[in-house]
Amino acid sequence: MNDIVYLNGAFVPRDQATVSVDDRGFLFGDGVYEVVRVVGGVYVDGDRHRARLRRSLSELHLPDPAADGVDLLAIGSELLERASIGSHGEAVVYMQVTRGAAPRRHAFPPAGTPPTVFVSAWVFLPKREQMASGIAAITHADLRWQRCDVKSVNLLPNVLANQQATEQGAYEAILLRDGVVTEGTHSNVFAVVNGVLRTHPNGPTILPGVTREVILELARDTGIEVLEQALTAAELRRAEEVFFTGTTTDVMPVISIDGRRVEGGSPGPIARGLGERLTARMGAIAGKH
Amino acid sequence: MNDIVYLNGAFVPRDQATVSVDDRGFLFGDGVYEVVRVVGGVYVDGDRHRARLRRSLSELHLPDPAADGVDLLAIGSELLERASIGSHGEAVVYMQVTRGAAPRRHAFPPAGTPPTVFVSAWVFLPKREQMASGIAAITHADLRWQRCDVKSVNLLPNVLANQQATEQGAYEAILLRDGVVTEGTHSNVFAVVNGVLRTHPNGPTILPGVTREVILELARDTGIEVLEQALTAAELRRAEEVFFTGTTTDVMPVISIDGRRVEGGSPGPIARGLGERLTARMGAIAGKH
Repeated sequence: MNDIVYLNGAFVPRDQATVSVDDRGFLFGDGVYEVVRVVGGVYVDGDRHRARLRRSLSELHLPDPAADGVDLLAIGSELLERASIGSHGEAVVYMQVTRGAAPRRHAFPPAGTPPTVFVSAWVFLPKREQMASGIAAITHADLRWQRCDVKSVNLLPNVLANQQATEQGAYEAILLRDGVVTEGTHSNVFAVVNGVLRTHPNGPTILPGVTREVILELARDTGIEVLEQALTAAELRRAEEVFFTGTTTDVMPVISIDGRRVEGGSPGPIARGLGERLTARMGAIAGKH
Repeated sequence: MNDIVYLNGAFVPRDQATVSVDDRGFLFGDGVYEVVRVVGGVYVDGDRHRARLRRSLSELHLPDPAADGVDLLAIGSELLERASIGSHGEAVVYMQVTRGAAPRRHAFPPAGTPPTVFVSAWVFLPKREQMASGIAAITHADLRWQRCDVKSVNLLPNVLANQQATEQGAYEAILLRDGVVTEGTHSNVFAVVNGVLRTHPNGPTILPGVTREVILELARDTGIEVLEQALTAAELRRAEEVFFTGTTTDVMPVISIDGRRVEGGSPGPIARGLGERLTARMGAIAGKH
């Protein structure tokens, strides 16, 4: 991809896109982000991502670029056009807003300090092979803060748990807090227990995943019994199916956890069915435009 | 101060010191930092800060610049020389190491990705008036992650709590986790309860403060009874004295919490005594060189 990004009002080559060492994103992780999927040149659930970004900004009292007429998704579309991904490509658009650059102190900088606004896009292909075969996961203590509902760039615990997974040859880590499964390091977790599709309810300890929400809708539409109730570690061990969901994860079946096979040891029917429906839904969104 | 900073091997003007938008400090808060006090041109407890930085880097499996012969404190000294703070000034040196710039993914970047190394220095004068009069504090829920012993730049919860304090006209927030006082947003917390000097024991929920350690030593030397045991919220409310400690906080007496006067409503004798000893100790360190 022609590597142009958007930074603070300008389209610039990635290797010239830099932020001040005094940027609060760099000094404090004081910012939020959003990742939106593009299929056939069209955003998938752009409005839901836009709403979640607005909420993240609001919860942290960050300035909202939209208030100044800056539409990050429109900027993302322009990046796709410039990269000639335009009307056919599969991509993701990454957008991040931080509280800007200012002399270092913990409290917010003076009013009027312009936020740092960064948008980037790159080609993204779904992980079809891994979705078909299923992947390995590990469990890991959920060490994160208590506002995981905000999509902030304070991602160090996610990084460390994901690195653990990688080092153990796994795709992702399932995070456990106080004995229950919360979510993955960059995905939500679903499991089928006694035929019921379970996932952690929304609240401060998980991200309200856009794909999580869509999967719940698709499952209910299909007549699958759904329960938004946290899974215990014991329930996870005896689940009939386990899968991750996410913007770049789609529906990713888990076939082993900590080296133990999940029942059957291959992607289960509910994960496969929902994965197909999700793919079909994306195709329909792309086709409509 | 002549505004030169050190970034990745070069001394550059601050307004030209920038990092890539792909820096993992900016994208994930994937880095650690240290702040060291300079009095009379001399580091205060430089070795303890160096050891803590080494530990932070090691805990996060970050590359240690020292392994490549890069001594961040020596770089800080050079910044002070260039700024003509040299042999007389009062300053702080800020140093930060992130996991470098790489295409965004949660797991660590490829081995050999150079870390981003940033050092900055600025004039710092102790807050003598506030120390003399005492300051207001608020209490705030401790929303941070469970590795607060690592001095990482994942500081969003600290930022939010400190901003709350600022908006309420207070100097700092006292963080409460599971009903006990852990520390401040950028300081440790001490209190005198029934004549005993108390502070939270070291462990994953607090930063092992260098000044905290020094204050414990000074208190023991003076014959003050010391107990490293977490303070409950109820004990905090009836404490005879409360104070913050830190590299840029020294000993800062708290005279009100959430608008309620701490006993007497003025700095207590233990805080004042330890504050004087800390100042004298810094003077002695400066004088020795």
